[in-house]
Amino acid sequence: MEQDNLSVVLHSQGDLRLEKRPVPEPGPNEVLLQMHSVGICGSDVHYWQHGRIGDFVVRKPMVLGHEASGRVVKVGSAVKHLQVGDRVAVEPGVPRGMDEFFKNGRYNLSPTIFFCATPPDDGNLCRYYTHSANFCYKLPDNVTFEEGALIEPLSVGIHACRRADVTLGSTVLICGADLFPERLAMAKELGADFQLTVKRGDGPQQLATRVENMLGAQPHITIECSGVESSIQAAIYATRSGGVVVLVGLGSEMATIPLINAAVREVDIRGVFRYCNTWPMAITMLASGKVNVKPLVTHRFPLEQAVQAFETTRQGLGIKVMLKCDQNDQNP
Amino acid sequence: MEQDNLSVVLHSQGDLRLEKRPVPEPGPNEVLLQMHSVGICGSDVHYWQHGRIGDFVVRKPMVLGHEASGRVVKVGSAVKHLQVGDRVAVEPGVPRGMDEFFKNGRYNLSPTIFFCATPPDDGNLCRYYTHSANFCYKLPDNVTFEEGALIEPLSVGIHACRRADVTLGSTVLICGADLFPERLAMAKELGADFQLTVKRGDGPQQLATRVENMLGAQPHITIECSGVESSIQAAIYATRSGGVVVLVGLGSEMATIPLINAAVREVDIRGVFRYCNTWPMAITMLASGKVNVKPLVTHRFPLEQAVQAFETTRQGLGIKVMLKCDQNDQNP
Amino acid sequence: MEQDNLSVVLHSQGDLRLEKRPVPEPGPNEVLLQMHSVGICGSDVHYWQHGRIGDFVVRKPMVLGHEASGRVVKVGSAVKHLQVGDRVAVEPGVPRGMDEFFKNGRYNLSPTIFFCATPPDDGNLCRYYTHSANFCYKLPDNVTFEEGALIEPLSVGIHACRRADVTLGSTVLICGADLFPERLAMAKELGADFQLTVKRGDGPQQLATRVENMLGAQPHITIECSGVESSIQAAIYATRSGGVVVLVGLGSEMATIPLINAAVREVDIRGVFRYCNTWPMAITMLASGKVNVKPLVTHRFPLEQAVQAFETTRQGLGIKVMLKCDQNDQNP
Amino acid sequence: MEQDNLSVVLHSQGDLRLEKRPVPEPGPNEVLLQMHSVGICGSDVHYWQHGRIGDFVVRKPMVLGHEASGRVVKVGSAVKHLQVGDRVAVEPGVPRGMDEFFKNGRYNLSPTIFFCATPPDDGNLCRYYTHSANFCYKLPDNVTFEEGALIEPLSVGIHACRRADVTLGSTVLICGADLFPERLAMAKELGADFQLTVKRGDGPQQLATRVENMLGAQPHITIECSGVESSIQAAIYATRSGGVVVLVGLGSEMATIPLINAAVREVDIRGVFRYCNTWPMAITMLASGKVNVKPLVTHRFPLEQAVQAFETTRQGLGIKVMLKCDQNDQNP
Repeated sequence: MEQDNLSVVLHSQGDLRLEKRPVPEPGPNEVLLQMHSVGICGSDVHYWQHGRIGDFVVRKPMVLGHEASGRVVKVGSAVKHLQVGDRVAVEPGVPRGMDEFFKNGRYNLSPTIFFCATPPDDGNLCRYYTHSANFCYKLPDNVTFEEGALIEPLSVGIHACRRADVTLGSTVLICGADLFPERLAMAKELGADFQLTVKRGDGPQQLATRVENMLGAQPHITIECSGVESSIQAAIYATRSGGVVVLVGLGSEMATIPLINAAVREVDIRGVFRYCNTWPMAITMLASGKVNVKPLVTHRFPLEQAVQAFETTRQGLGIKVMLKCDQNDQNP
Repeated sequence: MEQDNLSVVLHSQGDLRLEKRPVPEPGPNEVLLQMHSVGICGSDVHYWQHGRIGDFVVRKPMVLGHEASGRVVKVGSAVKHLQVGDRVAVEPGVPRGMDEFFKNGRYNLSPTIFFCATPPDDGNLCRYYTHSANFCYKLPDNVTFEEGALIEPLSVGIHACRRADVTLGSTVLICGADLFPERLAMAKELGADFQLTVKRGDGPQQLATRVENMLGAQPHITIECSGVESSIQAAIYATRSGGVVVLVGLGSEMATIPLINAAVREVDIRGVFRYCNTWPMAITMLASGKVNVKPLVTHRFPLEQAVQAFETTRQGLGIKVMLKCDQNDQNP
Repeated sequence: MEQDNLSVVLHSQGDLRLEKRPVPEPGPNEVLLQMHSVGICGSDVHYWQHGRIGDFVVRKPMVLGHEASGRVVKVGSAVKHLQVGDRVAVEPGVPRGMDEFFKNGRYNLSPTIFFCATPPDDGNLCRYYTHSANFCYKLPDNVTFEEGALIEPLSVGIHACRRADVTLGSTVLICGADLFPERLAMAKELGADFQLTVKRGDGPQQLATRVENMLGAQPHITIECSGVESSIQAAIYATRSGGVVVLVGLGSEMATIPLINAAVREVDIRGVFRYCNTWPMAITMLASGKVNVKPLVTHRFPLEQAVQAFETTRQGLGIKVMLKCDQNDQNP
Repeated sequence: MEQDNLSVVLHSQGDLRLEKRPVPEPGPNEVLLQMHSVGICGSDVHYWQHGRIGDFVVRKPMVLGHEASGRVVKVGSAVKHLQVGDRVAVEPGVPRGMDEFFKNGRYNLSPTIFFCATPPDDGNLCRYYTHSANFCYKLPDNVTFEEGALIEPLSVGIHACRRADVTLGSTVLICGADLFPERLAMAKELGADFQLTVKRGDGPQQLATRVENMLGAQPHITIECSGVESSIQAAIYATRSGGVVVLVGLGSEMATIPLINAAVREVDIRGVFRYCNTWPMAITMLASGKVNVKPLVTHRFPLEQAVQAFETTRQGLGIKVMLKCDQNDQNP
């Protein structure tokens, strides 16, 4: 194993550096991973550009990256289910305290959770990284490293669908790519039955009517991914009585919404915070071929070109930019 | 049977009259009831004072009243489960169309529902009234007529608790009686473990902290009954991560709320619209003595004094004003 | 409209006749349908061969058939959502009483339900048939009559999946086609990822182990469709702790099963009785192309050859035999 | 702290001894408890009498006891939420592996769980005992040590009620104390509304009819606590369509039951395995006074008289026998 652990470190707002760190040693319940593919998330870029997200402030240098997969190169003394050579996807959130949320199966809500690249916790955009073995999931042979890295954003979708009680036969409205024709086109390619381009100035109730007319009925469920107030309003008006609006996109702290319309039609409003218990399901979905995430990767850069990769993401080019951390294997 | 069907009729805003109407004839699936006890609801008073609630406008004379019980005096030709003499509680909402909401067990959401004393549908504040036999529920001997009439407001509570998933061991914050010491005292008498008097000017986050300090932990569930924006805000801040806020009180159409706080802590926001499938459960609760609603009745008037009874309610005196419609039996 | 209403009538065990009946007149809430495609179900054949299923005994002549679609040719006076010419699928079960099961959204459990071709209720294997308009569902243009008729057996699957809480990413074991290689092949063609041919004599625990080895883990859910005791036993042993076994197949009244194994692993055992609230979802599934039922139709006969069609079904040839009731349109 | 750790040790079938063991040292995430009150469970007696329960065999000396409370006398280095002097109730099951069951909130199903007094894991019928601090729950001042110890059997009831979806207004049939008049009397005292004494020879269907006649309707839920085959049969027949039978009592491995009756009426059959996430709720229930478990303790013995206490339990005398482990405080 080489001793150089090249890492993408954010020192403070705007100050992104590539630097060499020591290769860490796994604890008894950890594994050391040689990272293979790590996607860049909007939140990585946001920390870079603004130095914070809400109350999470970058106060000391932090490695970025949390959409990751790699290969096990060393296992801690107490680890039984993984061995050297295993290809794994990394779940970035690891509950530290065994509190009521963890015991109840909603560990994403635990206030003590460790989370890659959320200050002050380091992420895994580097060559070598240690992680709780219990939150590394072995990939089947027919699932690539990049698919493994994409389980993280896929998990956001899975968790949102679970919170929304999406099931076979549900009609679902997804708000979020509405202003970008090329994103709408990708959504259509990946399975959307209808698409609606929102024009700035469209009123929320008008939009709701257009959705109903297009589908022939109001959708059972709306998944709102933009965080824009007018879109949240449209989401409520558009959803069928007895249905659900799930909030994935986050906007400003306070929002003005048609709460009575939601209440008297018993349209539930539910948020999501990251995800929990999604990796095993995601691996099943990818291994069976029921879901295809491969077309989402539109750009690839070797780890050494991380700054350029971040700049590409910042400009909103393509869909997903993937960093390739293994010098000897830059395949998907 | 006497031919006089004295009825409390609202002609238009502010114009409440006692008038004699013909005794109606039950259809094949209906029963004719001799009304016994009918409670006055805030919505009855609101129609009287304002002539409307939201989009529901009194455009022609309408009998008020929907918290009711009475005795069967005639049964329709197709009715099998009721007979003359049966004492029944009346569920005021009757779905007319067999639409998806009815088939799915959420008939309260059916847009075609008949509902007593919601324009243009007549209520049952009168001597004789016909109703769908399927929505009249026989009272056991140990449940009084007044308890039968109180099943309607009790149903609002049952439905809210169901929507909130209240179960044994849940800690529940109820917002709503907060400014009225005598209502707080009644809540305490009827089972509340703690009470908190809100002072005008208390900030929502301060209130949330006071609740947590009082209970020793954040409540799993908050049932918001005031409809006041600041109280809805406090309800969200006060509720434990992963919990539920149920909106029972209705305020203005648009509300400004800390939506991100709710979303990232996965605090669900759910409204209620009336109720469904509550009468059988309510009768079980009352018959078993597990719930005691009797102390809620603080005033009684004979039907002839309906205007005085409405005036008493309007002034906010006491808790529940009951009208006694049967001249020969004014017992509870 | 022709006046000949050719109908397939079972007079008693073994006595199946084609006879002409009068064209019925729709009631106020009914529609008159010109039947187009009606599938033959195993239960139709069972009544023909045995004159009964459990407590349901053919005591007077009964029209068979309950997997049906047709065209509206007359509408009752109170019907609003359908008009002459509409192509509809028929839900054969219609609750007669508005009892607790109906109000709760589980009308399939109502003891008073009308059900096509369950004695003494007539089915719809005929030229003209009247049915509750609320249980006729309009077919989109891109859904054929035969797909409409197949909604009935599809509904059994939908209801079983709902009872099992099947969702995206669930691993599901389906027991039932296990001894017939051609049915296994069809299952594989229609989407099964794995298949296992059961040999007579395989022990239930051995089978469970083979399933686990094949899948790499125990399935979350098992849907048992054979009704055979040893298969029910295998279903329990095979299912993952915390999972669900759904019983679709029915065997003998009493069954000996490893109840403790199920109990201490919290593997729930749930039955299904027909279905409820499945037609709208099924139409969505078919219209969107997400589910393809067309290959299931392996034989077609004109209504006049009903006896030959029944004989074909009795011999277990093919998968689904469809009767074509409209002389002028025998298309799928 | 004294150095004598008197412990109740089962060496093999029938060989129960009181012996002195060293006082253990808590690990970083553990606490050392001075035990106060430990109830004797039927399973403790069963291990003593038979040396095994199912596949769990006593192969080496094992401390008995798992219904326990005590006082913290030492805390591990990583423990934050407890301190010396805290009075705590002990949850005896502690998941060792962070597997899918634990992550999903159903840690009772984890195959790697540690469980007090299930071979080979030692229990806590002794003077000093170390336990995972995360599974020790601080008792409020108004909850006694004995109530704390009784949380374990109470948890069985809570978990069964959760599995059954018991909620306010549910009618519940509990089978289990049926042949013992004094247990029925206690059940009545503690809240049962009706009681039915079963006579040997009563048929399951007859019993079901008697239950329906007594209640006026079939119960929504049946909790079967005897494990006797005929009682399980009666439980199924007695339960309302769409309801639930929960199996708490365990009988023989295979059981013959009316599976079709359950299936076609959609009466679900669900088992329980111990419990999870019940201690916080139980403490809330006890602290609020909503549940009173105190009358269940009918006998008390000092730890030194453990053999006599076990003999009392074996003879079926009283309800709950409590061992008092603290020589200086034998209060409830």
